[in-house]
Amino acid sequence: MELDKQRFEKQINFIMEIDKEKNIFRQTHLSGGGRRENDAEHAWHMAVMCYLLQEYSNQPFDLAKTMMMILIHDIVEIDAGDTYAYDEKAKETEAERENAAADRIFGILPEDQGRKLRSLWEEFTAYETPEARFAHVMDNFQPLLLNDSNDGGDWKRNGIRRAQPEKRNEKTHTGSEEIWDYMKEILDRNVERGSLLP
Amino acid sequence: MELDKQRFEKQINFIMEIDKEKNIFRQTHLSGGGRRENDAEHAWHMAVMCYLLQEYSNQPFDLAKTMMMILIHDIVEIDAGDTYAYDEKAKETEAERENAAADRIFGILPEDQGRKLRSLWEEFTAYETPEARFAHVMDNFQPLLLNDSNDGGDWKRNGIRRAQPEKRNEKTHTGSEEIWDYMKEILDRNVERGSLLP
Repeated sequence: MELDKQRFEKQINFIMEIDKEKNIFRQTHLSGGGRRENDAEHAWHMAVMCYLLQEYSNQPFDLAKTMMMILIHDIVEIDAGDTYAYDEKAKETEAERENAAADRIFGILPEDQGRKLRSLWEEFTAYETPEARFAHVMDNFQPLLLNDSNDGGDWKRNGIRRAQPEKRNEKTHTGSEEIWDYMKEILDRNVERGSLLP
Repeated sequence: MELDKQRFEKQINFIMEIDKEKNIFRQTHLSGGGRRENDAEHAWHMAVMCYLLQEYSNQPFDLAKTMMMILIHDIVEIDAGDTYAYDEKAKETEAERENAAADRIFGILPEDQGRKLRSLWEEFTAYETPEARFAHVMDNFQPLLLNDSNDGGDWKRNGIRRAQPEKRNEKTHTGSEEIWDYMKEILDRNVERGSLLP
């Protein structure tokens, strides 16, 4: 069969464009007090977690769809950069920056696939479906685990108060009550050891 | 509902163990002549590619299963290390090293999940099902794209002959004739520019 070269080249251009996500670094550090984590590694880790922890979702969800949602949820940061969860000033312009990024980056794909990925990303951002809710649980639980394994160093370094992750996670229980209960234990532990301000 | 803590902790232990995959570096360099790529980023990139390029598979395949196969296919390298595709000496002991790694690492999970992931990894290695075949196309196509974007520098640096990627890819056409045809064009181009020895 003859390949539709124009379509294929758009797909390859997108695949090469997202290689840049490996250079977008987050505030979270790898376990063992390692270097900062990048967006691509973070998404990979979340996707494996999503598969392994699916039994704790409050609601049944579509696994393949959620894994893909997770894998692409940070692609907009190639243009918009990583916005630290507790940087209130940067948060103000985050939506605008990310929308412009979505226009450009998903626009590289053939129209049908660009539309599909953009709608997956919008569904993640809207935080309403079982898929989006569970993907957000993974997005918040993963850095919590890494940070806890480093004695809460990322919180300590930034002078974070317990109320800040509490607020950031105000909807986490809608994705998984069980995982949110466990996350609260982690927060308690880090207040006790002085890594998180009370 | 009360969490089965013992089961959950096994899952978390595995999730923390595989964080190490972010420190297993490959021979391939990121596009733009960047640093070497690690296994976690490579798997992330392959999984997104698998979703976008599924239409080129010779045979229909199970998407969620293949994405998960891809995401975990290099986990054994946490213990066994990355074996360069053209290092014939290291290749001799690769299977033995990787089997021992699989015993240890998948053994961290609850028994049912450890069995499932190990069988996915074995299916990948056996290279027989449509899922394994397409996963291998991604595993070979992804570094080829990065390397080609860097003018074939990874081949040049290691003095690779065209026959070596040809041999490594001898079964790639069983996963996707169309992608293999495109890969051959990339090999031709790199012989022409002197990055790959004839």
